[in-house]
Amino acid sequence: MSRIRYGMVGGGPGAFIGAVHRMAAALDGEYSLVAGAFSSDPAKSSTQGAELGLDPTRIYDSWEAMVDGESRLPAEERIQAVVIVTPNFLHFPVAKAFLEADVHVICDKPLTLTVEEAETLCRLTAARNRVFCVTHNYTGYPLVKEARERVRRGELGELRKVVVEYSQGWLSTLLEAEGQKQAEWRADPARAGISSALGDIGSHAHNLVEYVTGQRITRVLADLGTVVEGRTLEDDANILFRTGQGVRGLLFASQIAVGERNHLRLRVYGTKGALDWCQEDPNDLRILESDGSERILHTGGGTLSDEAQDHTRLPGGHPEGFIEAFANLYRNAAGTIRLVEGEEGADPAHAGDFPTVADGARGVHFIHACVESAGSGQWVDADYQPPGERG
Amino acid sequence: MSRIRYGMVGGGPGAFIGAVHRMAAALDGEYSLVAGAFSSDPAKSSTQGAELGLDPTRIYDSWEAMVDGESRLPAEERIQAVVIVTPNFLHFPVAKAFLEADVHVICDKPLTLTVEEAETLCRLTAARNRVFCVTHNYTGYPLVKEARERVRRGELGELRKVVVEYSQGWLSTLLEAEGQKQAEWRADPARAGISSALGDIGSHAHNLVEYVTGQRITRVLADLGTVVEGRTLEDDANILFRTGQGVRGLLFASQIAVGERNHLRLRVYGTKGALDWCQEDPNDLRILESDGSERILHTGGGTLSDEAQDHTRLPGGHPEGFIEAFANLYRNAAGTIRLVEGEEGADPAHAGDFPTVADGARGVHFIHACVESAGSGQWVDADYQPPGERG
Amino acid sequence: MSRIRYGMVGGGPGAFIGAVHRMAAALDGEYSLVAGAFSSDPAKSSTQGAELGLDPTRIYDSWEAMVDGESRLPAEERIQAVVIVTPNFLHFPVAKAFLEADVHVICDKPLTLTVEEAETLCRLTAARNRVFCVTHNYTGYPLVKEARERVRRGELGELRKVVVEYSQGWLSTLLEAEGQKQAEWRADPARAGISSALGDIGSHAHNLVEYVTGQRITRVLADLGTVVEGRTLEDDANILFRTGQGVRGLLFASQIAVGERNHLRLRVYGTKGALDWCQEDPNDLRILESDGSERILHTGGGTLSDEAQDHTRLPGGHPEGFIEAFANLYRNAAGTIRLVEGEEGADPAHAGDFPTVADGARGVHFIHACVESAGSGQWVDADYQPPGERG
Amino acid sequence: MSRIRYGMVGGGPGAFIGAVHRMAAALDGEYSLVAGAFSSDPAKSSTQGAELGLDPTRIYDSWEAMVDGESRLPAEERIQAVVIVTPNFLHFPVAKAFLEADVHVICDKPLTLTVEEAETLCRLTAARNRVFCVTHNYTGYPLVKEARERVRRGELGELRKVVVEYSQGWLSTLLEAEGQKQAEWRADPARAGISSALGDIGSHAHNLVEYVTGQRITRVLADLGTVVEGRTLEDDANILFRTGQGVRGLLFASQIAVGERNHLRLRVYGTKGALDWCQEDPNDLRILESDGSERILHTGGGTLSDEAQDHTRLPGGHPEGFIEAFANLYRNAAGTIRLVEGEEGADPAHAGDFPTVADGARGVHFIHACVESAGSGQWVDADYQPPGERG
Repeated sequence: MSRIRYGMVGGGPGAFIGAVHRMAAALDGEYSLVAGAFSSDPAKSSTQGAELGLDPTRIYDSWEAMVDGESRLPAEERIQAVVIVTPNFLHFPVAKAFLEADVHVICDKPLTLTVEEAETLCRLTAARNRVFCVTHNYTGYPLVKEARERVRRGELGELRKVVVEYSQGWLSTLLEAEGQKQAEWRADPARAGISSALGDIGSHAHNLVEYVTGQRITRVLADLGTVVEGRTLEDDANILFRTGQGVRGLLFASQIAVGERNHLRLRVYGTKGALDWCQEDPNDLRILESDGSERILHTGGGTLSDEAQDHTRLPGGHPEGFIEAFANLYRNAAGTIRLVEGEEGADPAHAGDFPTVADGARGVHFIHACVESAGSGQWVDADYQPPGERG
Repeated sequence: MSRIRYGMVGGGPGAFIGAVHRMAAALDGEYSLVAGAFSSDPAKSSTQGAELGLDPTRIYDSWEAMVDGESRLPAEERIQAVVIVTPNFLHFPVAKAFLEADVHVICDKPLTLTVEEAETLCRLTAARNRVFCVTHNYTGYPLVKEARERVRRGELGELRKVVVEYSQGWLSTLLEAEGQKQAEWRADPARAGISSALGDIGSHAHNLVEYVTGQRITRVLADLGTVVEGRTLEDDANILFRTGQGVRGLLFASQIAVGERNHLRLRVYGTKGALDWCQEDPNDLRILESDGSERILHTGGGTLSDEAQDHTRLPGGHPEGFIEAFANLYRNAAGTIRLVEGEEGADPAHAGDFPTVADGARGVHFIHACVESAGSGQWVDADYQPPGERG
Repeated sequence: MSRIRYGMVGGGPGAFIGAVHRMAAALDGEYSLVAGAFSSDPAKSSTQGAELGLDPTRIYDSWEAMVDGESRLPAEERIQAVVIVTPNFLHFPVAKAFLEADVHVICDKPLTLTVEEAETLCRLTAARNRVFCVTHNYTGYPLVKEARERVRRGELGELRKVVVEYSQGWLSTLLEAEGQKQAEWRADPARAGISSALGDIGSHAHNLVEYVTGQRITRVLADLGTVVEGRTLEDDANILFRTGQGVRGLLFASQIAVGERNHLRLRVYGTKGALDWCQEDPNDLRILESDGSERILHTGGGTLSDEAQDHTRLPGGHPEGFIEAFANLYRNAAGTIRLVEGEEGADPAHAGDFPTVADGARGVHFIHACVESAGSGQWVDADYQPPGERG
Repeated sequence: MSRIRYGMVGGGPGAFIGAVHRMAAALDGEYSLVAGAFSSDPAKSSTQGAELGLDPTRIYDSWEAMVDGESRLPAEERIQAVVIVTPNFLHFPVAKAFLEADVHVICDKPLTLTVEEAETLCRLTAARNRVFCVTHNYTGYPLVKEARERVRRGELGELRKVVVEYSQGWLSTLLEAEGQKQAEWRADPARAGISSALGDIGSHAHNLVEYVTGQRITRVLADLGTVVEGRTLEDDANILFRTGQGVRGLLFASQIAVGERNHLRLRVYGTKGALDWCQEDPNDLRILESDGSERILHTGGGTLSDEAQDHTRLPGGHPEGFIEAFANLYRNAAGTIRLVEGEEGADPAHAGDFPTVADGARGVHFIHACVESAGSGQWVDADYQPPGERG
């Protein structure tokens, strides 16, 4: 099969997440990077593109120039997909422009700054019949697939309680005042939106809960704090919630939990058993049995579900990590793009199972519901269905 | 030194916690059990007393008979302390009666059913100049002492966030309907009070937070659930809180977290570092450093504080457990009793550092504040100072 | 039931293990300490006895005086058992003298300095029909019982490989030259015997292997090192072995594994599964399944064997430790003493299951076989059956 | 920079390790796969090549045809490097042929079947001035770099003891009789050589010890077992060793440790501290302090050495795994190839630090010394310096 040609917006020198996307795209040989507008600074874009060995004519000074330039190329040369790894506020205009140019989109989270923007993208994606993948990458881990399958198959019984946390400590100081770029734009409402901790990591936790449980978070009570002096947006978020089926839950996300690295952990308790998964040890899935014993499943083990095994590259005991999970989104999106494009030999079995534009919209709505609740100190209805989402 | 003579109310055949108290009292050779009213059923009381080798004249048919009988004995024979290990509703009348008979009290938690009862005990304890220890036993662990010392010494910097949980799964089914005694009374408001999960385990979590941080929980927003059908009291409690110093926190306690055994875990994050302690691995204290590394301290290690070492019996690597921690309360209460009694050689260094009647009263108040908040869905002021408590 | 009257030889001020024995004996209320020769220094013996509240007439200046003094007391007063917690070289004469006075013996390990001495004690124990418990205490843990039961029931299939280690770091420096008493006598061949690491901790590892697997170590190849300069006896021992059934194994014990506390860990691999237990986390038993998943069993869990449950005091999640395991030996020895003494109500179900004088003799023989192998650099036959041991 | 053109020998359909090499080569965009002889079966080679999108003229029926075909291509088209992922017995002839054609070699371990073959490759590599990387991939992990640096800097003090194990359970049954390809050739002396467990995994353990300690294993005493009935080569290897500096160690490797996945663990004890690293949790490095506390370092943490950080792709808490470690070998080999080729902009800082042909030869010699020792039951001199190796 030929590789899917893609371009990148953002991901210039020093941008951690751009490099992750490129490695994830490269891992399985499904994609080929052929164009880019890597920075709002043309010189930086040029440097990055050269380092990546791109044809200089396809290194652009701006994303607008890239939309334009790629559209002029013959169909068999121009990019089929765009990867958007900019600060949040650019997700919307860039995604919209490329969708309108009939380019598939792989976009970082949170999807947009407002619910309205998100809904516009939902409608446009459907209208243009494009693939739109939002990189809630944690669902790409094999054992997250396993967790979801176990819930689906009823192995936990009826669900009763959910605890999810996403603790980081990297913003324990006013890093944004020290010229750290990653911190800078995340702390700026104009570029990050109405939220920092919730948008950056809480939205992952939200997505993970909904993915694994198959239930929707429909009521929230949020306590949001701006702990570090001098900061504008919240850096600590503590939320009580309920799902549509009445399951009680806690979601807490923090950027000031000093010493924590990237501690995303999900626990789901049912009537018959529970599960516990932590992103920092992603190859272990702890099953709590009702008799008080535990079972630990490992990535690559023989008794895992087909869904888990289909997203595993190595035998048991050979650790798979963040990049491999990320690559699973890319691989599944690739399968879907091939299918949508009507590529010969495209296999429906390799399509689907990645976070969609609707999932992204749900995340944006959740952020807004939490901010509203924190303002009032009251429970808020967070029930929401993005345009076009199937029930 | 001669052993402190004590009697026990409750703790008859099959009562887990009575045996724990007896082992904790025996461990260091500070106490001698000489009397008991072990059950409301005289036959059972008699059986238990005989098995323990007590003098038959000091095995009583009721706690009232025990107050009476012991009071008639010569001072050098009668009990100096009573241990109360009954269902919650009896704590108050029994404690009151023995205090009035000038007997020191060691009593299980929650202290009483109402705040008023708790305050009565506070005043009586002061009036009679007695020692009153409430067995919030988790503070007895050496590494909990260490945690408190580290907070005190400022090693975490200013505190910013607290997460405490106490997850159990043993009430995941309607066990109280199956004749399980421990479950039965805990599910009965007449005997347990207005709360099950909060009273039984949430109050331990509350006490642990206040003990380690040295701060008071002064605002709460609670979401209490009765998850198992047919049950009256809450079996799942999720609480957002603030301390008097404005530190944000979460406290969650559950009896329906299936598969969890006795998972009490405390995390405290400051500006400079964090700590993490879990009762199921009580000999490890995890220190999170701001550089993203961890330090694990172990009970018995040479660099621990004097406070931790004073509550350690064995060299590092020799696990100490629940009974040893419990025994630390008994040992400290013994030292205080000896001091109050003016015993020759009593050492002030061995007095103090056990949960007091005021701590117990604070726990009762916390339970009531949470129930109130859950009713209104609103934040509730939980600031409280029991009668006689110093600042 | 009345308590078993016991006396202690050794265990004076500052002796860690004497206090452990006393706590273990006290925990279940089966024993009462009534006499002692706590030190070779009469003043220290006297101080220790007084602190323990003993009758001054039963605090002896020497163990010889204690044998003599106790023998003169009426049968219903004199000690029924002696606990020997002296440096190794005294185990033999003290045990011999008390056996000859018809006193049951609970003795620390290694049993004796020579195989001949051990055999003398085996014969004398049988001749006098006494109970002789050697405190290979690690077999007292509930999950060690569980491990043995699982091997017995064939849940691992046929055994194939054993790995046992006992790593400590406390002798990483020449502590014996700094006046540390525990280190001093262990480093002195006259008091410790021909071995340090093997005698002190390797013998525990040997006992644990034989206890859990039900097989005997019959061939050894040892590499013994004296790593710390200035030391006489070995402080690092690395041994390849085979059992009578041909199972291959490794046993390594070290006192210079800096940073290790008391790391005794046993792994047993069979055809169908494996088990992994570590003394520093004694309440977890890891079962490795052939499909690459793990099952973790916890002390107090409902699915454990009767043997494990019979040695458990608390519900799951309430950590039991070193003292509780030690106390299980005391409790089982007590049941056996009552039976042997023909005490009314003595229950055969509570007798047995403690390390015997024969187990002790086997340990001594193992030490000698290893020292021989280390001398020759060759495999050595370590097959051995102490006098009177049933096949 | 342009990508290094490489071809692959072996790695056809179903071959796990071939896919790993391709992902490792792809990850950083340094290599481009342009040719292959993927199987001894031309049809399979063709299928694999097509699936990988290769030019059909560069998919070869045999490695001999590939040497020939590539040699005829213009220099700017032909492969610069060959990756050899065949069964062991082919490593030698394939590597030799490509070296003679002036192609750089990346080859799986063990390097060759005999020491003589290994030495031939050493000499040829030097004579042709080629890069030869043997994929002892575990040295590619960032925290293995960190471990080596800590030893180098003297943070452990003088080394005293090493324990390394590599436990797997996948050959617990006679898998090779069931048509499992990976098992089949490893069990066949004609294709695997004189060893199975030692060659396949023991050689990794040997390499890891020498890499981290900077010392050489110079004496061995081996106990090799063939545990599964019907098998020819050893599947369980237990080895006592000494380094040139007299450090005592144990190395054990097993393919019949049922339930173990890929458990490679190294512990190094010194006079001042110890370290502990396990491949299944590769992002944690445990430092044992002499005071009995531990420090856990995590990949991506700020206090790691430059060497560790240079081999890290993601911030702390974002797990890196097997493929990333493998890719580090590829990346370092690429830097060296560019340097040797005199490529413009080649940076010496990116050259070196991968296992060389000499390391491979040392591994082969170690296997032979162990087999010899197992035959005699005696210590064997394993001191060895491959031709051309610097001191």
